[in-house]
Amino acid sequence: MTDISPVLARLDADLDASVARLADLVKIPSISTDSDYDADCRRAAEWLVADLKTIGFDASVRDTEGHPMVVAHHEGPAGENVPHVLFYGHYDVQPVDPLDLWDADPFEAKVIERDGVKVITGRGSADDKGQLMTFVEACRAYKAVHGALPCKVSILFEGEEESGSPSLKPFLDANADELKADFALVCDTGMWDAETPAISVALRGLVGEEITVKAADFDLHSGHYGGAAANPIRVLAKILADIHDETGRVTIPAFYDGVEEVPTQILESWKGLGLTAESFLGPIGLSEPSGEQGRDVLELIWSRPTAEFNGIQGGYTGKGFKTVIAAQASAKVSFRLVGKQDPFAIRENFRKFVEERLPSDCSVEFHPHGGSGAIQLSYDAPFLVKAQTALTDEWEKPAVMIAMGGSIPIVGDFQSMLGMESLLVGFGLDDDRIHSPNEKYNLTSFAKGQRSWARILDALAKG
Amino acid sequence: MTDISPVLARLDADLDASVARLADLVKIPSISTDSDYDADCRRAAEWLVADLKTIGFDASVRDTEGHPMVVAHHEGPAGENVPHVLFYGHYDVQPVDPLDLWDADPFEAKVIERDGVKVITGRGSADDKGQLMTFVEACRAYKAVHGALPCKVSILFEGEEESGSPSLKPFLDANADELKADFALVCDTGMWDAETPAISVALRGLVGEEITVKAADFDLHSGHYGGAAANPIRVLAKILADIHDETGRVTIPAFYDGVEEVPTQILESWKGLGLTAESFLGPIGLSEPSGEQGRDVLELIWSRPTAEFNGIQGGYTGKGFKTVIAAQASAKVSFRLVGKQDPFAIRENFRKFVEERLPSDCSVEFHPHGGSGAIQLSYDAPFLVKAQTALTDEWEKPAVMIAMGGSIPIVGDFQSMLGMESLLVGFGLDDDRIHSPNEKYNLTSFAKGQRSWARILDALAKG
Repeated sequence: MTDISPVLARLDADLDASVARLADLVKIPSISTDSDYDADCRRAAEWLVADLKTIGFDASVRDTEGHPMVVAHHEGPAGENVPHVLFYGHYDVQPVDPLDLWDADPFEAKVIERDGVKVITGRGSADDKGQLMTFVEACRAYKAVHGALPCKVSILFEGEEESGSPSLKPFLDANADELKADFALVCDTGMWDAETPAISVALRGLVGEEITVKAADFDLHSGHYGGAAANPIRVLAKILADIHDETGRVTIPAFYDGVEEVPTQILESWKGLGLTAESFLGPIGLSEPSGEQGRDVLELIWSRPTAEFNGIQGGYTGKGFKTVIAAQASAKVSFRLVGKQDPFAIRENFRKFVEERLPSDCSVEFHPHGGSGAIQLSYDAPFLVKAQTALTDEWEKPAVMIAMGGSIPIVGDFQSMLGMESLLVGFGLDDDRIHSPNEKYNLTSFAKGQRSWARILDALAKG
Repeated sequence: MTDISPVLARLDADLDASVARLADLVKIPSISTDSDYDADCRRAAEWLVADLKTIGFDASVRDTEGHPMVVAHHEGPAGENVPHVLFYGHYDVQPVDPLDLWDADPFEAKVIERDGVKVITGRGSADDKGQLMTFVEACRAYKAVHGALPCKVSILFEGEEESGSPSLKPFLDANADELKADFALVCDTGMWDAETPAISVALRGLVGEEITVKAADFDLHSGHYGGAAANPIRVLAKILADIHDETGRVTIPAFYDGVEEVPTQILESWKGLGLTAESFLGPIGLSEPSGEQGRDVLELIWSRPTAEFNGIQGGYTGKGFKTVIAAQASAKVSFRLVGKQDPFAIRENFRKFVEERLPSDCSVEFHPHGGSGAIQLSYDAPFLVKAQTALTDEWEKPAVMIAMGGSIPIVGDFQSMLGMESLLVGFGLDDDRIHSPNEKYNLTSFAKGQRSWARILDALAKG
């Protein structure tokens, strides 16, 4: 049994040095989508391996078809029965265009004051270099103080998260035995707000379909053919309009199979967060929840499935008018999934739904996109409860269990390929401008994030 | 009272010379949309003035803000009470790109045999140089044989028909007294088929609206906001889907005000033309009329109003997927009008229809396009009956009164600005490839077109 206080003290004392280390990592422009930066991606991986070795990790750069992975292992305390955790993060970053919208060099991390708050600037300062370094720094301090880590820790850093992670599944598959742990720690999410820590326990899944309705062999003049020829935009609009009923529910047969109501107690705790339609939608210029009637905003985005139309196109879309009847029209439709909804059954039923509404003169083509079920952790899993307590201790405010509207594919991959649940803890904030100019990470997120991980590792090791 | 036979004989004897004159006119590349050809447009106008003067017309080139008009006048026979007609045509032509798809020089009119039929080749050979010269040649022969024309004839040739006729209304307005006649003759339409002459008695009107539905201030991530934020594509699809009911009728209030059923006798004559859903829709890859149920194809395109969606666009339309909720979505909607439907009332009602279906979170912007009522001639107007008889005599097959799905704006302008009805007779065929490479005009259309006008002028002059 170790004492966490000296570890926390050490982290505090070492804060300037840890910012300097983060700055070293931010300086490497590891933009994964642009092949001009291939060498930089490798440099970032090598930098991490070198740094992890100083802590005592058995760390290595591992080649893939794309950018390399970083894999590292560190034993737990000798003779103790502690959990084995796999920490996941990514060292690659988003491009920085447009450069002229940045107030300073995107690859120079500096502590400045912005709007009265101390922040660390730079691309990747939050997503995900800053976040992953909170964990590395926690390990460094723990090792320095106690000569060991409280758990057996493995680390996986990938370099392709911002470009669709093409190498991830093959790598997990090829190295399943090595990477499998008791559970994963994923640090790529956010806090509820600047004071309130959060654990993400549910992530919606996603399945998408691009549908193209085809009618005549070529575009027609609406004067000559209007009233006689099938108009694919009309057919498509009718199909899309049929997907929701008057109350906002999705009408595709069996769509709600596997959707469960959120426990009342959780719903109550969400209500306690004080988020309203006004506070959530106001900043984007809206005011009314548009989903299923009678449900709160958080319930809608965290726990209910959706059908969204992400794009539509057909006919003449330039300036002015062209009185044409198009030969075809397309829409991109995606479904956010929750609970045990089966993405493939939904795709199947959606296709049937479309085909049943097709006039005999029209045909349809489908192009599938994605297909991942929702992630739902059990609210009372022991590692979750321990982490919640650790976060509450650190932030002196109860950590909330939240859900996320979007998906984090790695969590599904860990579950399906390695049989491993994930603990999603992160210290990002909504105003971090990840993927945008002037990305930042609050100095408090960085400092207390390190302390949080030290506390969590400590708590997980305790019976 | 004159005899028409020697006029017809003279036209036959003069056919080669008339083809040569047409070739002279075709040779002038009077492309109105391309300012490189401005001087050629003026040359074409001057050529026509010179030619009309040889027939005895008081003809002149009249400047406008754009390409010049040709105006010409010829008195009728002295002392006789004959009608005054205004003949309309246009001397400008469409561009000829892509040049490599032409089998020969587009500005060289030659008589060749194509698919076993003698045709005159070249840009404008049909649209509208060949068509307008059928009338000029009829006047030339009549004058040569009888020393006079049977009616008082005015002529208006414009040079901007293929570029939207920007100068036409101002010119009609400024010269209303000079141009006003008893009725107009418009030669810019077609036959029913190569053997069957036709008079167009109804043209559908058109009113269009571009609507843009706006929701959030900017594009949103569908993971974060899906289920909570209004999706403008969904709102737009629902509005468009509401515009037609299950039977294909338009549901906009008062939409059918001013729409009358076609007289049974006319419907019967249309049935007699033998056009079926199969023969009309088959060549474009369709088979079933998509408009109001229970009506024949010709009835749908000639006598029924429509709501068509000419274009739609919103959200992400590139390759693959982007799980975005768009800030806005747009559609171009147009209505073909018949009978006495009021384009401005329909625009008003449509806007109301859209606004009523708008969630409180969304706004809409409208951009109007066009707005012209339908043209409907009385089936038993005396000049119509006379022309029908003349055409039937010439072609030895009953001339049919047909309608057109599209609009010819000049006809509406003559009606509203000069209080003048139009007789729409032309000798074009569906396969003339007007606006396309290898435009042609059948030699028979040119020859019998001239003879038809001679007969029509003769018939109109008779009590």
